[in-house]
Amino acid sequence: MPFASDALVERAQIPPQVEDVVAARRRVASHLRLTPVMSLKVPTPHGLRSVVAKLELLQRTGCFKVRGALAALSATDAPRVVACSGGNHGLGVAEAAQVLGKEAVLFLPSDASPLKVAAMKARSAEVRMPGPSMDLAFRSAEAFAETEGLPLIHPFDQAEVVAGQGTLGMELLEQAPHVRRWLVAVGGGGLAAGMALALRGQAEVVPVEPALCPTLHQAQVAGGPTTVKVSGSARTSLGAPRLGALPWGILRHRVGPVLRVTEDAIAAARRWLWDEVRLLAEPGGATALAALMSGVCVLPDTAPLGLVICGGNADGLPE
Amino acid sequence: MPFASDALVERAQIPPQVEDVVAARRRVASHLRLTPVMSLKVPTPHGLRSVVAKLELLQRTGCFKVRGALAALSATDAPRVVACSGGNHGLGVAEAAQVLGKEAVLFLPSDASPLKVAAMKARSAEVRMPGPSMDLAFRSAEAFAETEGLPLIHPFDQAEVVAGQGTLGMELLEQAPHVRRWLVAVGGGGLAAGMALALRGQAEVVPVEPALCPTLHQAQVAGGPTTVKVSGSARTSLGAPRLGALPWGILRHRVGPVLRVTEDAIAAARRWLWDEVRLLAEPGGATALAALMSGVCVLPDTAPLGLVICGGNADGLPE
Repeated sequence: MPFASDALVERAQIPPQVEDVVAARRRVASHLRLTPVMSLKVPTPHGLRSVVAKLELLQRTGCFKVRGALAALSATDAPRVVACSGGNHGLGVAEAAQVLGKEAVLFLPSDASPLKVAAMKARSAEVRMPGPSMDLAFRSAEAFAETEGLPLIHPFDQAEVVAGQGTLGMELLEQAPHVRRWLVAVGGGGLAAGMALALRGQAEVVPVEPALCPTLHQAQVAGGPTTVKVSGSARTSLGAPRLGALPWGILRHRVGPVLRVTEDAIAAARRWLWDEVRLLAEPGGATALAALMSGVCVLPDTAPLGLVICGGNADGLPE
Repeated sequence: MPFASDALVERAQIPPQVEDVVAARRRVASHLRLTPVMSLKVPTPHGLRSVVAKLELLQRTGCFKVRGALAALSATDAPRVVACSGGNHGLGVAEAAQVLGKEAVLFLPSDASPLKVAAMKARSAEVRMPGPSMDLAFRSAEAFAETEGLPLIHPFDQAEVVAGQGTLGMELLEQAPHVRRWLVAVGGGGLAAGMALALRGQAEVVPVEPALCPTLHQAQVAGGPTTVKVSGSARTSLGAPRLGALPWGILRHRVGPVLRVTEDAIAAARRWLWDEVRLLAEPGGATALAALMSGVCVLPDTAPLGLVICGGNADGLPE
């Protein structure tokens, strides 16, 4: 089963603290863009709603994942690291390795997006494709990392990675300290967990996921991460097969019931962002906005609201 | 000759002051997005250069022009206004009219972009296409405005419009007060002139134009606006047939020699913005950045530098 090896679950037992987020930021801030926030008036079934959008899709590599990658790679002395991802995590590790003068060996399924593969190679990463399945790619990465004695960088179930994603939350406290709730998309849970740590209760994380990628929903139903079937337009970025054990340890106590959005709602949010704001979000990047626009997010009050547009590596313009 | 009627040149003799920019902002701010600024490291022939980018392409309608339109429409009691533009100015007037509860009658050449026409109609503007040429459209707009006794909103040669564009400059002083020079694209000159007013000498405006749209260059050569031939990729937004008399009255004393960029430089700047930052600028919107990336902008020192990405209504993705 990908992303859930015993070795990684074991590591996950040492949860990061807010101090780890602060330390991660010290290591990575100079390598990141401080992505801007912007107030938008968003159409909802209940009329226009003002919201502060964090434009993390303008981050280096087009996605927040580079934060966790930089945090993990800057925490190890190893000159070479291993990861398994055909998507934004792989791109983030490739970028982080190049920035920090390390080598990245990336294991991908052979049907990975040629554009993403090209972007990884352009950052001097070594790309290996052992076969068609993500599972085989992950087992190959694990075996290679063990044989060579190299660190394997997990996309979300690793303390340094969660701490790195949390740096986004620290920026939010500085850029929009008045916001009381932040809508954020969940796949493996790394970003939501890092944000929950960083926000220290000064603002609440409101998790959102595609109905077709129900990792947090099923964890909340079952009382812990379970393996789920994932599909739909956002699966390339939010389609982790299960919530991370480490993110779950943080999220279980800090967030309410996850909001679930349809494919149509995600498509409508992408369309609106492109037509009205000229921002191209990937489906996972538009998932938080979809909760607001579709009316799934019903707010108990008028407290200032924010949301994270977390990724922009779309395959094309909205239909 | 379009955009240079006697009536408008006459109006242009009353130049706006910085107080007019302040007053315009009071009227229009609540109808605008406060577009964000963002630090970027941009490749130049002399290595990476840090620059603060004003992301005005995320403005309502995708372009700064709506600022001047809102300022002009909010300064008149007339319930109906006239404009001539197949591009961003027409879209801005349509948006401003809708927002302020007025009617807009827009005169366009019959070969205007169907997408832009649709966007104007979607904002309830009345669109009239008297024939194939911009000249005919402008003369028709003038005649109609005179017959009906309605205000004609000029795209740049009008005090309220210049003051409205200047509101962008006021935001820059608040958002990035440390920046000493702002690169900005010039067509008719309204934005550059408004910014020069608003910046009050606290920062310098560095004008940039496509070599194929040399309105300011020829004005600087001749000692005043002259009619020029315009062509190239940016002509739909920067292709005014001559610099405005009113902007010239402001710019002649406040800016140095205009920097001129090639078509290749504009294309490379668009490409980089899209590939590396996921921002889709139109050619005119990437013109200021093109001066920096191509090395045309040689800086005398390391003082903090900024640039305006002023529009995002591209016909498609960069090639």
